[in-house]
Amino acid sequence: MSEISINHDEVDIVIGALQLDLTSFMEEWRSVFSQFHLIIVQDPDLKGKLEIPAGFNFDLYTKSDIDGVVGLSSNAISFSGYSCRYFGYLMSHKKYIIAIDDDCVPAKDSAGNFVDAVAQHITNLSTPATPFFFNTLYDPFCKGADFVRGYPFSLRSGVDCGLSCGLWLNLADLDAPTQALKPELRNTRYVDAVLTVPLRTMMPTSGINIAFNRELVGPALLPAFRLAKEGNLRWETVEDIWTGMCVKVVCDHLRLGVKSGLPYVWRKERGNAIESLKKEWEGVKLMEDVVPFFQSLRLSTSVATAEDCVSEIAAVVKQKLAPANPVFARAAENMLEWVKLWKRVRTQ
Amino acid sequence: MSEISINHDEVDIVIGALQLDLTSFMEEWRSVFSQFHLIIVQDPDLKGKLEIPAGFNFDLYTKSDIDGVVGLSSNAISFSGYSCRYFGYLMSHKKYIIAIDDDCVPAKDSAGNFVDAVAQHITNLSTPATPFFFNTLYDPFCKGADFVRGYPFSLRSGVDCGLSCGLWLNLADLDAPTQALKPELRNTRYVDAVLTVPLRTMMPTSGINIAFNRELVGPALLPAFRLAKEGNLRWETVEDIWTGMCVKVVCDHLRLGVKSGLPYVWRKERGNAIESLKKEWEGVKLMEDVVPFFQSLRLSTSVATAEDCVSEIAAVVKQKLAPANPVFARAAENMLEWVKLWKRVRTQ
Repeated sequence: MSEISINHDEVDIVIGALQLDLTSFMEEWRSVFSQFHLIIVQDPDLKGKLEIPAGFNFDLYTKSDIDGVVGLSSNAISFSGYSCRYFGYLMSHKKYIIAIDDDCVPAKDSAGNFVDAVAQHITNLSTPATPFFFNTLYDPFCKGADFVRGYPFSLRSGVDCGLSCGLWLNLADLDAPTQALKPELRNTRYVDAVLTVPLRTMMPTSGINIAFNRELVGPALLPAFRLAKEGNLRWETVEDIWTGMCVKVVCDHLRLGVKSGLPYVWRKERGNAIESLKKEWEGVKLMEDVVPFFQSLRLSTSVATAEDCVSEIAAVVKQKLAPANPVFARAAENMLEWVKLWKRVRTQ
Repeated sequence: MSEISINHDEVDIVIGALQLDLTSFMEEWRSVFSQFHLIIVQDPDLKGKLEIPAGFNFDLYTKSDIDGVVGLSSNAISFSGYSCRYFGYLMSHKKYIIAIDDDCVPAKDSAGNFVDAVAQHITNLSTPATPFFFNTLYDPFCKGADFVRGYPFSLRSGVDCGLSCGLWLNLADLDAPTQALKPELRNTRYVDAVLTVPLRTMMPTSGINIAFNRELVGPALLPAFRLAKEGNLRWETVEDIWTGMCVKVVCDHLRLGVKSGLPYVWRKERGNAIESLKKEWEGVKLMEDVVPFFQSLRLSTSVATAEDCVSEIAAVVKQKLAPANPVFARAAENMLEWVKLWKRVRTQ
């Protein structure tokens, strides 16, 4: 799929373990994951010892590691549930980070070929993005593609790509109400495309299958937006949606790109949407405020790093959103706390 | 492909005839075109009598019809070459117009099935568009698709779709320099997706394979931007790129959607890119001014119809672009002339 030469030393694959037995997950991914260094972070709420098959090069972090770095203050950021992976981001020193949910296995493309999601993510991140004008034939840097007639030559060199958002087949990433309403709905459509999400266009980034350039946007991938009653089912959470919009605003401001599309992963069944319905509505309602907020957010021209972008976003969240709901006030605090933590870990 | 019920009386298929013998073109499309009313416009520069096979329901317009409606003044809009199809748009009274270049035949999808481009265009135009937030699983109104987690419910009803831009397989729609540089490049990637081009995102719309809602945006599909030395090869022209950006600005202003993606057509070989190289550079250079112009264009809130949008765009073109190059002054005049013509034809 990819003709990009991958420097394996530049990549960390971060796995948030929400289940104790990772055997089948790791075995399905063995041909890919065994080539890279892995960072496995055990959900601090998950008691017991992880089962990880032999033959992988990994660092494992558990609750005691998290507490050791972050501290035990009541004000500390929570790394529970899906948020445990953010601790892995904090610990990484690599250029690229790839994160895939532990209920996902490799997908097959339309021709039945195994999809190497990591290679595709690295391709997405290491080829330019084109956020300033939409190319109707999708990513012009894909093999066999180019810019179409009318695309200004001055925009064809593109910009660096900060974030690559992959997709998923089988169980689609729906919110609980939609999932409950359409329990039989599965995503079967393999769309063979990568595109750059245009400048100033916001989208709901799912954390299921993503990759990013840590050096460019690492501090913006943060655990900030936590619903009071969320558990460890994706459809109960919107933390990744919030984070995705933070990263998009940061990328737009720093003139970096965000790509969406390939690679797919195959998402297995987990949980009961009907059970989650009561909890999820909070997240669904909050999006009505969150989306317009990020759509209209513009950062000061003087802000020039991802850390400083996050700090400024936090300040505006505190000012504009926090009065309406304490979940926003908490998100702003988490963002500021995260930037401090990010800097502290890196200067130690 | 489509589950939309099509009212055949609402559709005109407009064919600009740039070659005298339409037999093979029409035969390839027979199963589709024979269901609809066709408007065939003969390129006024093309001398001779068109060959059109029997069994189609069509109106044919030639140079004398054009002259009769438009007049013979030196100031008249040119309907030469690809622009002849615009005369067909002017003559139509249907809700939907579909236009496909006469060097394109039906494509096959990845499974080898015949692609009914007309049905797909009607589906695109008659289902809502979602320009205000990007859905990562593409068109949520496609069969089997939905809005992903995080998509605000308030935005899920979408808006009317004004324009549907289809794509092409085989000969890609490249500019002459790119085509000359990569003569072997063919587009073989069938991307099984339709997406709404987001609000305020500009893109290069190719006129090869498009459809639009004439009642909503008809006046914005206009022959305005004509290069001095263009002939009748797509890669020599940028008229459709200009028109596409006009329509996009109009759709953004009127809160309508523009979709891009399916359906594909199969584009056959025509012309010699090396021969066109000398002429094309003018269009390529002009895009460097045209794209930023349309990207920053905002219309007055009081403007509420496509006609008035076009008039306002023309005024801004005259003010901002025309001083740099007479081709822009002429485009502005053509746009104003077109609006007059559009109104006159409709009130006769």
